[in-house]
Amino acid sequence: MPQAQATHAEPILALTPGEPAGIGPELVIQLAQSTLPCSLVIFADERMMQERAESLGLTFSFEPWQAGLTSDKPKLYIKHIPLAQPCIAGQLNVANAPYVVNCLDQAIDACLSGETSAIVTAPLHKGVINEAGTPFTGHTEHLQERCGVNKVVMMLASPRMRVALATTHLPLSQVSQNITQESLSQVTRILIDDLKQKFGISLPRILVAGLNPHAGEDGHMGMEEIDTIKPVMAQFKHDAELLGPLPADTLFNKKYLQEADAVLAMYHDQGLPVLKFDGFGESVNITLGLPIIRTSVDHGTALDLAGSGKADIGSLKTAVNIALEMASAQYSEI
Amino acid sequence: MPQAQATHAEPILALTPGEPAGIGPELVIQLAQSTLPCSLVIFADERMMQERAESLGLTFSFEPWQAGLTSDKPKLYIKHIPLAQPCIAGQLNVANAPYVVNCLDQAIDACLSGETSAIVTAPLHKGVINEAGTPFTGHTEHLQERCGVNKVVMMLASPRMRVALATTHLPLSQVSQNITQESLSQVTRILIDDLKQKFGISLPRILVAGLNPHAGEDGHMGMEEIDTIKPVMAQFKHDAELLGPLPADTLFNKKYLQEADAVLAMYHDQGLPVLKFDGFGESVNITLGLPIIRTSVDHGTALDLAGSGKADIGSLKTAVNIALEMASAQYSEI
Repeated sequence: MPQAQATHAEPILALTPGEPAGIGPELVIQLAQSTLPCSLVIFADERMMQERAESLGLTFSFEPWQAGLTSDKPKLYIKHIPLAQPCIAGQLNVANAPYVVNCLDQAIDACLSGETSAIVTAPLHKGVINEAGTPFTGHTEHLQERCGVNKVVMMLASPRMRVALATTHLPLSQVSQNITQESLSQVTRILIDDLKQKFGISLPRILVAGLNPHAGEDGHMGMEEIDTIKPVMAQFKHDAELLGPLPADTLFNKKYLQEADAVLAMYHDQGLPVLKFDGFGESVNITLGLPIIRTSVDHGTALDLAGSGKADIGSLKTAVNIALEMASAQYSEI
Repeated sequence: MPQAQATHAEPILALTPGEPAGIGPELVIQLAQSTLPCSLVIFADERMMQERAESLGLTFSFEPWQAGLTSDKPKLYIKHIPLAQPCIAGQLNVANAPYVVNCLDQAIDACLSGETSAIVTAPLHKGVINEAGTPFTGHTEHLQERCGVNKVVMMLASPRMRVALATTHLPLSQVSQNITQESLSQVTRILIDDLKQKFGISLPRILVAGLNPHAGEDGHMGMEEIDTIKPVMAQFKHDAELLGPLPADTLFNKKYLQEADAVLAMYHDQGLPVLKFDGFGESVNITLGLPIIRTSVDHGTALDLAGSGKADIGSLKTAVNIALEMASAQYSEI
């Protein structure tokens, strides 16, 4: 898989505020009120951002972005992409749906070409994009397609853990049949490679959850640990330190987590309840398997909060910090 | 279901140290070193307990138990039940397996007759009991049988939450087919009744998890929420405040949990990872649906630690405190 090569001196992050009627724009504006951890390029409509800032009584200073810009201190840039129609906070407008996808695509392209080091995404609204006639199943799937890769892995991070998922949005009754040696091997390969390349971890230590309660108790409560998980773990014994399959209810022990780089959970509700309980508004979604670095907030557009300035900036702040860490780790590898 | 009626003035708890070669006896001895929250009756071999205390350099004072004893201050009693052979910490002995079951049975009977108000169990070793020729699948199943009830519900408690399980030790692929309207209705009935009767909560507020990721997203990711969970919830709308079905990954929000009396999770690894992460050595197992109150530590016999005095007393302490709270709540209802 091709890794994008950065051409600039320090990491510069691409940031998409997402749905303009949601809380994304004001979260970005709030982020810009404190000292930036690095330079950011916002892919959005300048006037919309200015107006949103004014309505909240905040100032919002930026410079126009052009590829190749460098700076001694962190700066806020905007790559101006015009809205089709003026935006009112809290009110979705189908006419502006192509704008949202356009912002995302330009930000992805800036990462692929190496102009920016990573992309951080605020929430968009799938429904309104589909309503506008663009088939769109989600940020992650769109990134996968535009980057031309066959498989990505969803990983979430909270202050104390990273949890990657072997399966994501499937009915529970279909989880077992969807975990094959082939699919689990692909997921494990991506997880190990990205922990090495994007997090700078030379020998990742990964806690692998069993599929069944008590990790199947040696076959007494399900055979997937013996038939699928253990053989896949054996394939990677020289690439990483894989521990397990471990019972999910004792795996999330704070001591184990401290010594591990990630958890590989077999399905959505095995791994995410504990991660989000720990994260409490600061969880971040990371897409592994892309040729670029991508992190995302872990919440929706919250249309009811849009324009109030009350939305919690925790997840966006963490998403920016993690993207920056990843970009820096990748730099140190290059 | 008949509720045992207590005949004494204050709660007195029955306590079984379980497997004598495990950490149970020394946890009980350590518990007895600090001020007791109430009177306790230990069902065990007196000499074994004394010897274990001496080997740890601790004193262990008790009085012999007989039914009907009362006291102005908390006291430690022993109901002496003789071992078949002397016990060495860390070494299982098949000859002593009937003793373990005998202690348990006498403690259950003391609760059923009202001599004691609740039973708190330390871990036993299923393997050695089966090896001795007594079919034994677990504490909970044994309690269910001896108390003559058809169904019990496993609930775990940590400092911040109580989690009851709709299904327990099943392969993941069999979970969906085992949640029927009938089975879920039985579980919900037991949960509501016990929260009322044993926890003194007049209108329990329960967060009900969906079975599928995102609680099925209105049927887009599984139909069990619509076909099974919602109809069962509707049956109980006058008995309790049931919220859901909720996505498991956002349900365990600290704010929601503060305002709820319990979570009803659909399966083992949906509810227990987050509970044990929160509990961190202080989780307690509570069996609902019995005519008596029963709490248990949430760990095994830890034969490798037995006799070292290093085992963590947190879970036993919490199990005693919760049993006491439950017994007191039941008293206030009588």
